Amino acid sequence: MHIILLSGGSGKRLWPLSHGTRTKVFLKLLTSPDGGKESMIQRVVRQLGDADLLKSALVVSHHTQTEITRNHIGDRIPIISERHRRGTFPAVALATTYFYSKLHADEKDIVCFLPADQYVESSFFDMIKRLPDILDRSGAELSLIGTAPTHPSSQFGYIVPAPESETDYHRIERFVEKPDEQLAKQLIAQKAMWNCGVYAFRLGFLLTILKKANLPVLFDHLLEHMPQSSELSFDREVAERTTNSIMVPYPGTWLDLGSWDSLSARLGSPVTGTGTVSGQAIDTHLVNELDIPIHVIGGHRLIVAAGPDGILVANKQDSHQIKEILTDAENHSQIMYEEKRWGTKKLLDYTAAGQTECRTSRVRIAAGKHTSYHLHQSTAEKLLVLEGDGEIIKDGALIPVSAGQLLEFPPGCRHGLRATTSLTYLEIHIGPHNVSNDHIRLDMDWPGEAVHSPND
Amino acid sequence: MHIILLSGGSGKRLWPLSHGTRTKVFLKLLTSPDGGKESMIQRVVRQLGDADLLKSALVVSHHTQTEITRNHIGDRIPIISERHRRGTFPAVALATTYFYSKLHADEKDIVCFLPADQYVESSFFDMIKRLPDILDRSGAELSLIGTAPTHPSSQFGYIVPAPESETDYHRIERFVEKPDEQLAKQLIAQKAMWNCGVYAFRLGFLLTILKKANLPVLFDHLLEHMPQSSELSFDREVAERTTNSIMVPYPGTWLDLGSWDSLSARLGSPVTGTGTVSGQAIDTHLVNELDIPIHVIGGHRLIVAAGPDGILVANKQDSHQIKEILTDAENHSQIMYEEKRWGTKKLLDYTAAGQTECRTSRVRIAAGKHTSYHLHQSTAEKLLVLEGDGEIIKDGALIPVSAGQLLEFPPGCRHGLRATTSLTYLEIHIGPHNVSNDHIRLDMDWPGEAVHSPND
Repeated sequence: MHIILLSGGSGKRLWPLSHGTRTKVFLKLLTSPDGGKESMIQRVVRQLGDADLLKSALVVSHHTQTEITRNHIGDRIPIISERHRRGTFPAVALATTYFYSKLHADEKDIVCFLPADQYVESSFFDMIKRLPDILDRSGAELSLIGTAPTHPSSQFGYIVPAPESETDYHRIERFVEKPDEQLAKQLIAQKAMWNCGVYAFRLGFLLTILKKANLPVLFDHLLEHMPQSSELSFDREVAERTTNSIMVPYPGTWLDLGSWDSLSARLGSPVTGTGTVSGQAIDTHLVNELDIPIHVIGGHRLIVAAGPDGILVANKQDSHQIKEILTDAENHSQIMYEEKRWGTKKLLDYTAAGQTECRTSRVRIAAGKHTSYHLHQSTAEKLLVLEGDGEIIKDGALIPVSAGQLLEFPPGCRHGLRATTSLTYLEIHIGPHNVSNDHIRLDMDWPGEAVHSPND
Repeated sequence: MHIILLSGGSGKRLWPLSHGTRTKVFLKLLTSPDGGKESMIQRVVRQLGDADLLKSALVVSHHTQTEITRNHIGDRIPIISERHRRGTFPAVALATTYFYSKLHADEKDIVCFLPADQYVESSFFDMIKRLPDILDRSGAELSLIGTAPTHPSSQFGYIVPAPESETDYHRIERFVEKPDEQLAKQLIAQKAMWNCGVYAFRLGFLLTILKKANLPVLFDHLLEHMPQSSELSFDREVAERTTNSIMVPYPGTWLDLGSWDSLSARLGSPVTGTGTVSGQAIDTHLVNELDIPIHVIGGHRLIVAAGPDGILVANKQDSHQIKEILTDAENHSQIMYEEKRWGTKKLLDYTAAGQTECRTSRVRIAAGKHTSYHLHQSTAEKLLVLEGDGEIIKDGALIPVSAGQLLEFPPGCRHGLRATTSLTYLEIHIGPHNVSNDHIRLDMDWPGEAVHSPND
């Protein structure tokens, strides 16, 4: 079986820690088996590995998240990096054609895809392993996992089974997307289950669908010719158009950790980050990614979440209202903190004056790592090394650098940095406001760089 | 009458906006008559001016707060700047000897001192104006204002009157400092009032006390010889040792804005700074000095207060518990934000590596203003001008500067900056860890600098 892990899941409901440009799957808030913290994507990859499901697996993520994905899951799974977010159908189609045309998978092989942003126990993966057998026995073209509704939610899609039923699967009668509470109650009475977005099918099934839609079945061609017009979901493009499909019910715990109310129930400790929760506080959680302390005194079922983009203080049951409160600017703000393949970058200051803007960041490159070799078309860069040793490439020449040194790269100057020991520096960018394509990555890279993924 | 305004009042209870190195009198949170915001010290100076009580007035403040005091109250009142915080007795003694030996006040003149951190209506100052007459009529050496207790607080000092009483004043029987609630109830039944720290006396009265204590009565000598050993309060050193004293009751509103519970009642709007309060929030206040948004959804009688040193989220009635929660380090943290006479300075980043530390700040000098002329003994300074025009003095030479320029001042280099237009720059200090007396202010200053205060 080939596994596709979809690493999307942005949204406003976990603001400020997750928002338009930063997705919740990378929040290191869950308790890992060793007592440390892990992200949603780390948890699901760990569980897939434990279930021996990583032998043939791919991650599909947006190209802006390739580096952070790599930091979270390491080098063992290839990453397909999408230029555009176009929904689950293109993501699954790209990954499936990659298995077919690049890894020479057979048309009879089973492909299973699942989202990275769900919280399940390990028994969920045992069920995934039974899907090939169930597809065989049922003769179905498509199987979905249905999870047991805990309440008549209007936030999920429902899978309605046909009345007749086998021991471990049901024929599907229809899908209902986000019904109101009244309808949801009726659906639950009809044994409808939540659609958790986990699908399995034979590789050839999807190739046939691509051919019917006049789309290429070779990965490189599909990458070129994927329709860019509108968002295409696998639900609508495939599942709702397939009559021969089944639902496999999963009776265990399944959680969508998409709101502070549900996520905080999995946090373990009331305090994550710097600060305290004290006094008469009842079921109150603090998640602080800032480097200043937050002290919470009292509070009944409060969530206090703080990151470089802002701070939320909310009654847990009302915290979802944040998506109506946020302005577009707040949801797509300056990227304040970035995890890179080579280290981290934190924006300290942003100053705009007329047509010029200035960004000051503190950058840390891990020992032995390096940035790309690049230039800025119209931005001047000044670096002040605060700590550590390393070297720069500047217009092709290698120059050693150490703490206290000031480096200047005028617009057009080709440059890159490599850390010998952990290297920290201030980076000051001064350039025109709102310029696009300023950063040009150069083909010539540092020697010895590993290529991790098909199109990273 | 000579007025002394005591601008002390640090404390932990208004953390994070007020703490060990930053006092609450400078918080611009009160609504001014023009609908804008004013600080406690601005409010009291405005009220003193309206009552015509500023003709002979002095402010006593700690030397680290001279510049911010000047920013708040302007140039019209001289500031006595104390090197050490030694309590109200030295502060009042210094100011009194200044009136006597520098301004040639008469020993029969009345001196009245009051703290800057109280919230009263203008009728309070009408009462202060009656104190000279009441001192005359009563023949008392010392008069205090007593304010009407609103509840049996254990946070205040109580003035217990003798049973016999005149129309508008009472002889004082004794003082009780911070009684428990039980005793406070008994005291209130005996018509005891809160001691709000407002005292009036004849100048000669305090000179006599100084002489008895073998302390000098000339300002310059007292400044040299003030005991440094321990904190000396006027209450203990003077009031409790004076038998011929009276209390003048003030029936109006008097508030100690020393806790978030009391201060938030005076805020006017639920939101101060960037952010929102929404949902089912009841009597919830947000005070945000950060430049990232804070969204509060729901919450019953919550205070959310945020500044560069940290964030407090508390039930208002429990917010005073913050003083037990804070560590010493949190209460005496890096100064993140400073108001200077010439502008502002915000610490963006602090990095320590071994024996070296690096501080990066964004500094803004207001148009026409300048820093002092100074040098750093062991710290190297690098400046990058982000915006505006100005000039520097560097080892005596004047050099024009403008946006984009990088300036370097090695240790020992004498320098200063003056803004022509509003000037913003990044300042990076790299030097040894924990060095004292690094900053040396030079006698030679910029031409035309006004000297504001006796020993500023």
